[in-house]
Amino acid sequence: MLSNTPRSKVKKAAHKAQDNVDILYQVIDHSLIAHIAINEASGPVVIPMLAWRVEDKVYIHGANNSRLMRNLAKGHQTCLTFTLFDGWVLARSAFHHSAHYRSAVVFGSFTSVVDRGEKDRLLNHFIEQIAPGRCEDIRLSSDKELDATMLLSIPLTEASVKVSCGEVNDDQADLDIPVWAGFIPYKTKIGPLKPSATLAIGIDEPDYSSAYMGRWDSE
Amino acid sequence: MLSNTPRSKVKKAAHKAQDNVDILYQVIDHSLIAHIAINEASGPVVIPMLAWRVEDKVYIHGANNSRLMRNLAKGHQTCLTFTLFDGWVLARSAFHHSAHYRSAVVFGSFTSVVDRGEKDRLLNHFIEQIAPGRCEDIRLSSDKELDATMLLSIPLTEASVKVSCGEVNDDQADLDIPVWAGFIPYKTKIGPLKPSATLAIGIDEPDYSSAYMGRWDSE
Repeated sequence: MLSNTPRSKVKKAAHKAQDNVDILYQVIDHSLIAHIAINEASGPVVIPMLAWRVEDKVYIHGANNSRLMRNLAKGHQTCLTFTLFDGWVLARSAFHHSAHYRSAVVFGSFTSVVDRGEKDRLLNHFIEQIAPGRCEDIRLSSDKELDATMLLSIPLTEASVKVSCGEVNDDQADLDIPVWAGFIPYKTKIGPLKPSATLAIGIDEPDYSSAYMGRWDSE
Repeated sequence: MLSNTPRSKVKKAAHKAQDNVDILYQVIDHSLIAHIAINEASGPVVIPMLAWRVEDKVYIHGANNSRLMRNLAKGHQTCLTFTLFDGWVLARSAFHHSAHYRSAVVFGSFTSVVDRGEKDRLLNHFIEQIAPGRCEDIRLSSDKELDATMLLSIPLTEASVKVSCGEVNDDQADLDIPVWAGFIPYKTKIGPLKPSATLAIGIDEPDYSSAYMGRWDSE
């Protein structure tokens, strides 16, 4: 169950609010991208960042000399938003056209992961999520590479989740209008793998499909 | 060409910056969702909103009594970010793993569109973008519905665009490692249409595919 603080309480379309942590995790795991707010003197800025979850924390990484990462590492209150667009809802009236989506808004502040071994483990965990087994074959990070990387974590303790997946919501009086009503689904299609132009001849294509088969396509 | 103000100048990975307005428009048109920042007393909040472009402006809409819409209508400086995730880049070293993406960060402030006829035209334009020809068949909005809807516009005058679509960027010394290197592409699959459970028998399925065929799948 998610906490329900004043800022994480869903105010608009509250019937779409979800307090199931499994749905929060699913939205984060499928989004891949977090949109993260920082405040600059000239106003707020929203930056898209790769984000991955391990247990009850979300991680982001970037270069140690990145202005954004340094700003986030200061521990200011911030917000990460994850959104999956699932399709259009076509109603019989213009007014009731809408969308299916799943979104999660996470509040809190980032903490830097400084231990080199822990950084290595969490970064490799990210690669394994994308391409299971790959860390056995690639060159793992050197100390110098790990030191050049900033890794930040944020706990999933304060979040709100919205899921819009309902039926077409037409006015009763419009139900007889002879126009098609329904949904245009949007799904993510992953693969097939495409080799690098620099790939040597004779290297077999790996099978990473267990990471994503049936996860997006069959939903 | 896009303006290059201090806040819209790309600082990190500047070689990925684009100043072509066509790419900005493409990223916005394909994203559908804008992640918009507002500042609350407790910190910044990032809200996902449907967003569509007509010429050189982006529009969002919501209920007239929405706290978010009222906040944005005040004309504070804000930021809208649009992101398309195009896939993973699998390198021979953990460190050089990365992603293909396209993103646009738009700065400015919203203005409310108050003229009822103009609101009607712009909202119908949005429906026509999703489902060409549909406005001839549906019930168009009543004055009451238009009055209950807030429509906000922001001009596309200050924006930065980043496109990451390059080759695997391995260190020279890693090129001989016998591991597969390349890309896992992510694409959006749209359709097929799914009828509402309330759809009467005998209503033909429309063909809206001209709005999206070849636009996402074939990229």
